[in-house]
Amino acid sequence: MRVAVDAMGGDNAPTVEVEGSVVAAREFGIPITLVGDTEKLRQELAKHNVQGLDIAIHHASEVVGMHDAASDAVRRKKDSSIRVAFDLVKSGEAEAVVSAGNSGATMAAGMFVLKRLKGIDRPAIAQIFPTLRGKTLVLDVGGNVDCKPIHLVQFAIMGEVYARHVMGVEHPRIGLLSNGEEDSKGNELTRETNAILKNISFDYEGYVEGRDIFNGMVDVVVCDGFVGNVVLKLSEGLAETVGKMLREEIAGSLLSKLGYLFVRKAFKNFKKKVDYAEYGGAPLIGINGVAMICHGGSNVKAIKNAILFAHQYVCKGVNQRLAEKMETEFTAYMQQCDAVKEAAAG
Amino acid sequence: MRVAVDAMGGDNAPTVEVEGSVVAAREFGIPITLVGDTEKLRQELAKHNVQGLDIAIHHASEVVGMHDAASDAVRRKKDSSIRVAFDLVKSGEAEAVVSAGNSGATMAAGMFVLKRLKGIDRPAIAQIFPTLRGKTLVLDVGGNVDCKPIHLVQFAIMGEVYARHVMGVEHPRIGLLSNGEEDSKGNELTRETNAILKNISFDYEGYVEGRDIFNGMVDVVVCDGFVGNVVLKLSEGLAETVGKMLREEIAGSLLSKLGYLFVRKAFKNFKKKVDYAEYGGAPLIGINGVAMICHGGSNVKAIKNAILFAHQYVCKGVNQRLAEKMETEFTAYMQQCDAVKEAAAG
Repeated sequence: MRVAVDAMGGDNAPTVEVEGSVVAAREFGIPITLVGDTEKLRQELAKHNVQGLDIAIHHASEVVGMHDAASDAVRRKKDSSIRVAFDLVKSGEAEAVVSAGNSGATMAAGMFVLKRLKGIDRPAIAQIFPTLRGKTLVLDVGGNVDCKPIHLVQFAIMGEVYARHVMGVEHPRIGLLSNGEEDSKGNELTRETNAILKNISFDYEGYVEGRDIFNGMVDVVVCDGFVGNVVLKLSEGLAETVGKMLREEIAGSLLSKLGYLFVRKAFKNFKKKVDYAEYGGAPLIGINGVAMICHGGSNVKAIKNAILFAHQYVCKGVNQRLAEKMETEFTAYMQQCDAVKEAAAG
Repeated sequence: MRVAVDAMGGDNAPTVEVEGSVVAAREFGIPITLVGDTEKLRQELAKHNVQGLDIAIHHASEVVGMHDAASDAVRRKKDSSIRVAFDLVKSGEAEAVVSAGNSGATMAAGMFVLKRLKGIDRPAIAQIFPTLRGKTLVLDVGGNVDCKPIHLVQFAIMGEVYARHVMGVEHPRIGLLSNGEEDSKGNELTRETNAILKNISFDYEGYVEGRDIFNGMVDVVVCDGFVGNVVLKLSEGLAETVGKMLREEIAGSLLSKLGYLFVRKAFKNFKKKVDYAEYGGAPLIGINGVAMICHGGSNVKAIKNAILFAHQYVCKGVNQRLAEKMETEFTAYMQQCDAVKEAAAG
């Protein structure tokens, strides 16, 4: 299988995209097509030893910038690198897309070119968070700001399948993010969702709270894309702030500076554990294809790992599993939705 | 002025409530009435030297537990310590309430007994967060899970007045929590709120993101109580997790354990900076009176500081300022609301 890398999208494009692709091709033997300005990509590739690596270039004359509207990838810039990357998947020349560009545009182009999986109304962006015990998958973290209960139910099913088949969790525990554990808590959206999720055939643990994302209480945390995006950015910001505050304190005295020499390695290991680059990218789940959305400021390691995760997503047949799960659950949960709505109405 | 302390509400009641009150009375000379079971409170008080301190006991035969419904404080348990504490404010025997009990019950009792300030539809719980540059006030962090734009606008005005008069920020900068900075981002709720806030006469900076809560970009962050509660609990959880992960790493080798002896003080200072006990409690803003809501697991220091902040809230006439600000802004922002709604409709 071949991965199409949107080489022009990220903050440091195409330098990190090209180097990340070279490293992925070398370390994992994954064939790659770099999509973007041929001349620029040739120049970047010339900096590396690519002998024996299967790296192709596919020209795209346009780029969707971070400040462009997401719909530009669909309407205005039809020859943009992100749009062309999805076209390659559609035509069968590649099987997955990796992009560090405008995430809204990636989502829009993915939906437009590849369409959605049957039974999925809205694809979701799923982000892996490090926890004390392992990892937690949170979705949606940005795609869908105004959701209906049925969307959250679909996110839960998508998260369960991803955790099981890509993260290797045998019986994923699912939680719904809320402002308290009791069923009486939550808002209108979560209360209706909570009632439906109790009847889906997976390990649903009910409401979880903000703190549970990091204590590993569940494997999958479901929320709408507005809340999920706040969670994502807050976590990045807080981890950074904690690090800065500690360094400021340590720099405050000679003795602690000395001591820091000895704990430096511990800090480094910790940083690795919470480093988003380790998780590469966030899968866009629910489209009829595979796409990994990377942080705009991704480094070489993040691109490399995103390519690896895209490869695993394809090899483990996540979309096929998802289609099967939706097939078996769809009727059941549609009935549940109707039952809950009727109960609420009458 | 006198503070009524709900002595029976918290996880470690009445021990920490009584000791926190004794310390506050001793350090700041604030007169206090402990509300709760007289016999138990006498026993706790007997453990301390209270000579010369103005600490009274007011009997209340019931307690609203953490798992009781919030409305119990209003309907079922009319002689509960939290309800009686507010009754004391209503009758003029005290001027503020401090409670580490069921926060929903505190809010319900506060609204029922003291009513709301003119122009405020929903009181909000405001939490102070430590940042790299100072402090950020976030509201609402739990009271109101389903909000309309007008509620968020009121939260913004309440936050501005609190930041100015209690936190001492001369020109508070207000931000609206969203999933991106651009006006095109946000959900239905924030987009309408954003349009209204631009026309209120204060320093409105527009949308802010999750990371901005900790970088001190604004002084006040406005959000609905569902999102705010997720933010609050996520922050507590993440700060704890980061600490635990670092300690685990440090414990991993003898050398780093040795090094830790030298950086221990830096860790301790850091912990103090992010310690919620330092901020005491979260003011319940918008009721016609003063109440501080403390963490259920509050320690002595948290109770002591909450009593001090309640005292400042009263002394600085926050509610009067708030009433004035609402008076001057109310007409303007109601007109704005109507204009925005008309624009949306037509």
